[in-house]
Amino acid sequence: MVDVAGRQPVLEALRSGQEINKLLVARGTKQGALREIVALAKQRGIVVQEVDRSVLDRLSPSVNHQGVVAQMAEVRYWELPELLAKAAHSSWAPLLIILDGIQDPHNLGAIIRSAEALGAHGVIIPKRRVAAVTEAVMKASAGAANHLPVCRVTNLAATIDALKQEGYWVFGADAAGEPCFRQDLTGPIALVIGSEGFGLSRLVRDKCDFLSSIPMRGRVNSLNASVAASLLMLEVVRQRSWANLDPR
Amino acid sequence: MVDVAGRQPVLEALRSGQEINKLLVARGTKQGALREIVALAKQRGIVVQEVDRSVLDRLSPSVNHQGVVAQMAEVRYWELPELLAKAAHSSWAPLLIILDGIQDPHNLGAIIRSAEALGAHGVIIPKRRVAAVTEAVMKASAGAANHLPVCRVTNLAATIDALKQEGYWVFGADAAGEPCFRQDLTGPIALVIGSEGFGLSRLVRDKCDFLSSIPMRGRVNSLNASVAASLLMLEVVRQRSWANLDPR
Repeated sequence: MVDVAGRQPVLEALRSGQEINKLLVARGTKQGALREIVALAKQRGIVVQEVDRSVLDRLSPSVNHQGVVAQMAEVRYWELPELLAKAAHSSWAPLLIILDGIQDPHNLGAIIRSAEALGAHGVIIPKRRVAAVTEAVMKASAGAANHLPVCRVTNLAATIDALKQEGYWVFGADAAGEPCFRQDLTGPIALVIGSEGFGLSRLVRDKCDFLSSIPMRGRVNSLNASVAASLLMLEVVRQRSWANLDPR
Repeated sequence: MVDVAGRQPVLEALRSGQEINKLLVARGTKQGALREIVALAKQRGIVVQEVDRSVLDRLSPSVNHQGVVAQMAEVRYWELPELLAKAAHSSWAPLLIILDGIQDPHNLGAIIRSAEALGAHGVIIPKRRVAAVTEAVMKASAGAANHLPVCRVTNLAATIDALKQEGYWVFGADAAGEPCFRQDLTGPIALVIGSEGFGLSRLVRDKCDFLSSIPMRGRVNSLNASVAASLLMLEVVRQRSWANLDPR
């Protein structure tokens, strides 16, 4: 069972309509801050239970729970065909984010948050060697992980092949790629983001149709993985909704 | 005295030419990983000292030092006139980032990292109630805080007035603003980013010439502060270097 801790994440979980088993509230917490949360839970018929703060501390050792924890039904990961069907029926051209080895829960949460806000249809992560959607990820996503489909796959390379067969263009974020401003990002796209330290793995890189870079002007010239992912998504948004494609 | 810990940050500090008092290396660390660092330090005539790992643990309690700490001369904050002069003499139109209440060191570090990589001329932070450039900030910036001027000011409102007098346009990041894609960001710009939880403070918001938003399509519809700052900087880069201005 996954717990969601902290006021904003719990509020988002309540609003999203996801199945919540029980809401735990710290005894003696100021009522004002939690009033909306408790009211919403009662309205949805969710059991609200007062517990000692130490219970919440134990349930949520790594995240500041701010006096409230929602005990959720297990996070539901989507199946790939389900995600592809959802993306295909959207009014927007499909945009999926594939994460090739993101290990930091904060980065995973931040990428899910940006992807949800900027209109991507889902995030695909491998089952092994990466962060899963834990409580810390949920919190870093500001609750967006409740809304955005996350799909876990066994084999990224095979997934990329399947996406290509569905008509997707697969773009890998890589400093060696062409500047994103010169690329047509208006079609169905899967954007692959590499790991924090090492970028794209060799096999995945070779599978990409294109590599795409963010033009840089500095001396350090590296970006946080969640920032890089967000910047490329913004360029997709811009091309699709705010400009005629005008590659120079 | 500020310590810089971790391999990549120390390497960046060495390369940047900043004054380093001493390099401390953990006894028994694998030589390979630190070879380049030690060679560079010796080449620059910096004292390299082997110490017990526990010494580094004490110097760097909150950051993973990876066996190496550089003891720096105090981080030098720039004065505003100095920063304005540097920006005015650049080949690019001035681009400064003003942080109105960023409290999370990781966000401050990430913003400095993006600002440096995307070509901003400097970051302005208030002296009170915000994160200063500590070791955690340095690490989160991946060393970029060694290269990018950071200016601390007493009064943000007065600083904004001074920037306007110098011919800057002051843009505040705010969901109520016009979409950034419709705004001309090619002139001298100071971009103001609000705090993580509360956005721009009232006084600073009222001082802005324009408010600028990032178009969003999701349900949560909020972005991490460092991501929002990075996205607006990317649009500045795009307009200045990759497109004729074409507001629709």
